[in-house]
Amino acid sequence: MSWRSSGYRRRSSGYRRRSERPGRSVSGGPSSPHCNTGGSTQSSHRLLAYSDALISIIATVMILPVAHTKIGDNEELKESVQVLLSTKICIYLMTFLIVTVAWAAHVRLFQVIVRIDDCLALLNLACMMLITFLPYTFSLMATFPENHLGILLFCGCVMVIGLMQAVVVVYAFGRPHLLKEEIQSSEDQELYKHHILKVILKVPVMCFLASIFSFIFLQLSYVLLAIVTFLPYISQLLKWCEEELPDPGLLYQLSDPLSKERLEAFSDGVYAIVATLLILDICEDNVPDRETVRTLYNGSLVSALRGYGPEYLAYFGSFVTVGLLWFVHHSLFLHVAQTTRLMGLLNTFSLAFVGGLPLAYQLTHDFPPDSPNEREAVQFSCFIIFCAGLNQLGVWVAALCSQRDTLHPDVRYGGREHIFMLAKLALYPCVALGTFFLTCVLGKFSASIFHLMEIAVPLAFVALRLLVRAALAVLRQVFCPERPDGPGAVLEEEEALVT
Amino acid sequence: MSWRSSGYRRRSSGYRRRSERPGRSVSGGPSSPHCNTGGSTQSSHRLLAYSDALISIIATVMILPVAHTKIGDNEELKESVQVLLSTKICIYLMTFLIVTVAWAAHVRLFQVIVRIDDCLALLNLACMMLITFLPYTFSLMATFPENHLGILLFCGCVMVIGLMQAVVVVYAFGRPHLLKEEIQSSEDQELYKHHILKVILKVPVMCFLASIFSFIFLQLSYVLLAIVTFLPYISQLLKWCEEELPDPGLLYQLSDPLSKERLEAFSDGVYAIVATLLILDICEDNVPDRETVRTLYNGSLVSALRGYGPEYLAYFGSFVTVGLLWFVHHSLFLHVAQTTRLMGLLNTFSLAFVGGLPLAYQLTHDFPPDSPNEREAVQFSCFIIFCAGLNQLGVWVAALCSQRDTLHPDVRYGGREHIFMLAKLALYPCVALGTFFLTCVLGKFSASIFHLMEIAVPLAFVALRLLVRAALAVLRQVFCPERPDGPGAVLEEEEALVT
Repeated sequence: MSWRSSGYRRRSSGYRRRSERPGRSVSGGPSSPHCNTGGSTQSSHRLLAYSDALISIIATVMILPVAHTKIGDNEELKESVQVLLSTKICIYLMTFLIVTVAWAAHVRLFQVIVRIDDCLALLNLACMMLITFLPYTFSLMATFPENHLGILLFCGCVMVIGLMQAVVVVYAFGRPHLLKEEIQSSEDQELYKHHILKVILKVPVMCFLASIFSFIFLQLSYVLLAIVTFLPYISQLLKWCEEELPDPGLLYQLSDPLSKERLEAFSDGVYAIVATLLILDICEDNVPDRETVRTLYNGSLVSALRGYGPEYLAYFGSFVTVGLLWFVHHSLFLHVAQTTRLMGLLNTFSLAFVGGLPLAYQLTHDFPPDSPNEREAVQFSCFIIFCAGLNQLGVWVAALCSQRDTLHPDVRYGGREHIFMLAKLALYPCVALGTFFLTCVLGKFSASIFHLMEIAVPLAFVALRLLVRAALAVLRQVFCPERPDGPGAVLEEEEALVT
Repeated sequence: MSWRSSGYRRRSSGYRRRSERPGRSVSGGPSSPHCNTGGSTQSSHRLLAYSDALISIIATVMILPVAHTKIGDNEELKESVQVLLSTKICIYLMTFLIVTVAWAAHVRLFQVIVRIDDCLALLNLACMMLITFLPYTFSLMATFPENHLGILLFCGCVMVIGLMQAVVVVYAFGRPHLLKEEIQSSEDQELYKHHILKVILKVPVMCFLASIFSFIFLQLSYVLLAIVTFLPYISQLLKWCEEELPDPGLLYQLSDPLSKERLEAFSDGVYAIVATLLILDICEDNVPDRETVRTLYNGSLVSALRGYGPEYLAYFGSFVTVGLLWFVHHSLFLHVAQTTRLMGLLNTFSLAFVGGLPLAYQLTHDFPPDSPNEREAVQFSCFIIFCAGLNQLGVWVAALCSQRDTLHPDVRYGGREHIFMLAKLALYPCVALGTFFLTCVLGKFSASIFHLMEIAVPLAFVALRLLVRAALAVLRQVFCPERPDGPGAVLEEEEALVT
């Protein structure tokens, strides 16, 4: 199959300007590991990869206090889940959204500043240090909402981060060779600088107001903080609604879509830390004590380990699910040429649910088998997997809505890869929904069966691939037997299946 | 400063062949996000990045049981450290080395297979699942050395990983378009395949023998496992000794140096997880309970949080140290064009010590102020930082030893950047050594002062930069006043300082 690049030429001018210089993109990439504009200037590629890794770990960190909440066997899960939902899950979700806002701001900043030097690298590390501290201050604020210390700490962090980013902007505009080429060669550099500073300083100023109001009228400061946190999401949604008229001027240039590479790097970080959170626990807690084995199990290690069986099964189930969700995400973004705001937003939601998986697994192996709690834990897991998969599907649908700009030609409507992609994306929501209804019908449902089912899903992937190919071949034979390329296409399919 | 590329032309043929095609390197890079050799074949870039993230988190996971070991205030640290050293630290270090061996094998495998399809991606994820389980099986084996169950589990994991990798090789050689171009166009494809299979299956076969011997003669199976684990390191050292005569034939091609991009990605993962391990603990454990604050602190959140002061300080100190060690690593590898075996080995050692930092910080804030234990904890931290820095310096020295192949031209002996680099690398070992002797002289030493010192090190970085520039300028003025470019060079320096 040849590479049909004609679709790219019909793009809007803003996109073309970017896509014409793939080598000069934000990442720098392996083809330019060492920048030749002077010894002290460097490609920002690795700094950004490291920042993405840090921020993605931090975004998911608040799931740990949720996942490690001990739930008594006798309590009803429903009630405990409600208690959890009301506080810790909310803290987790809010932290995730806040950290993602900080990450998006970081991405936009370093889409303008495409090269760094030592000073910028150190300033960026200082920013990272404060961003990693944000979840803690937020969780203090949420645990003691009536105390203004939490707000002060949180706002203090945000203000210092904002000021540092302002320093970064001023520093970089003083050394224009660090900037993006469009801005370097532009005559409106001062205008750009002021616009970016205005955008960056909006948040610290609002936080400053919020911290002052925290002494006078606490409720108002929460309203201000909510505006700061959710405004980017709301404006993303609003801007998506009016995206049909892209402004080719200054503002449009600065609101470039999120860099696809960094979106991938951030997502990889979240998937990697979620996949390993459970093994971190297992490595730490589930190595039996020598003394315990001698006294409780008469020295038999096998019987001591048998007690940990559910944990192992939960780990493998968790890893397979996270791994396959990553695989679907990977396949999806292989076909994506450019990300829009809405795709970024839906991806964030999908990642937030993926981050909830450690909680789901903790729940499924915390309860004794065959208790009603166990069934509800399995249902909860299904719900989380369903939402994560559905949002991935949403990313795909959003990409299809503006497919000329976002997708590679061979996966657009009608392309052969298109149907595979849809099948891959639909698999997890369907499996999760099916399992959910199965638990409702069967009355009781073992968590072990659930985990075994999860481990079996990869086979479904392979089966699905064969099924889709067979169905396509049959459809073509039935409906278009007269098409001259019919048998040839089927042969081509067969060949693709074999190779 | 112009880009002097003449040095590259004098390289050995093996290197040139690689460097001529930077765009076709293993990573694929952002310039080729979508492979055009058919819909089902993909660039392996993101799969490898995800694998690196997973493996680097797993490599450092066994520091958690060490760091979370509770040490009573009354015990002597020396004794507890000895107990720790004898078991848990050894487990951590061994796990790190074993996982790094698995990672290096993965790197070499995917230097041969440069493109993937869905099937390879799923096989790779299955491999990852078992690699992430290795630390747990190893720690079982180390805790119950007299029980053959641990060995069986560990060897079972290794054997299944080996078999999967063999399947990956057979699968990829059946579809030659997935392979590296040199092998694709070579006539000795079968020879390559057999050689790679032989290398890959050596480890599982030895593990199979070890698991059989575990029933007969336990000690022998440990010897076999030790050979499997350390043989790569020993052979790396041996091969480094005879590296002067690179064989341009088959074997040399397969023993290409480790991919620089993947070495960076793996290191980034280790630095990122180490930097965030402490905040994971803080977020989970150090949010005070509402009830506790009301009863113990009369509702005063400030006084409740005051107790956590040392934790915050330790966190910031830890983050700054890890961040700056990453920064030095980043600067170092910016100048590196090609990594040798020895550099990879020294980098592994450096990372192993970086992974020990969470333990150091746990120790420094676990003890009451002014106890002898606190002083020893600070000394232990200094030791770990010193070793991490020293091994980084070692990487640099190793790079200098074969600078024609490994370094970019402007950092070789005599280059201006060379001296900055050496100063950066020497900073942490010097600071750590200085602090160590200070604690010996002063008799007692507060951990808080230690952490404050660490937070102040970035200023030292900036001061160092100014100092080196000033010293260079003075030296030039004193020794080469007659050189025609003398004042010009100084001016250039001044200019570089300002910009």
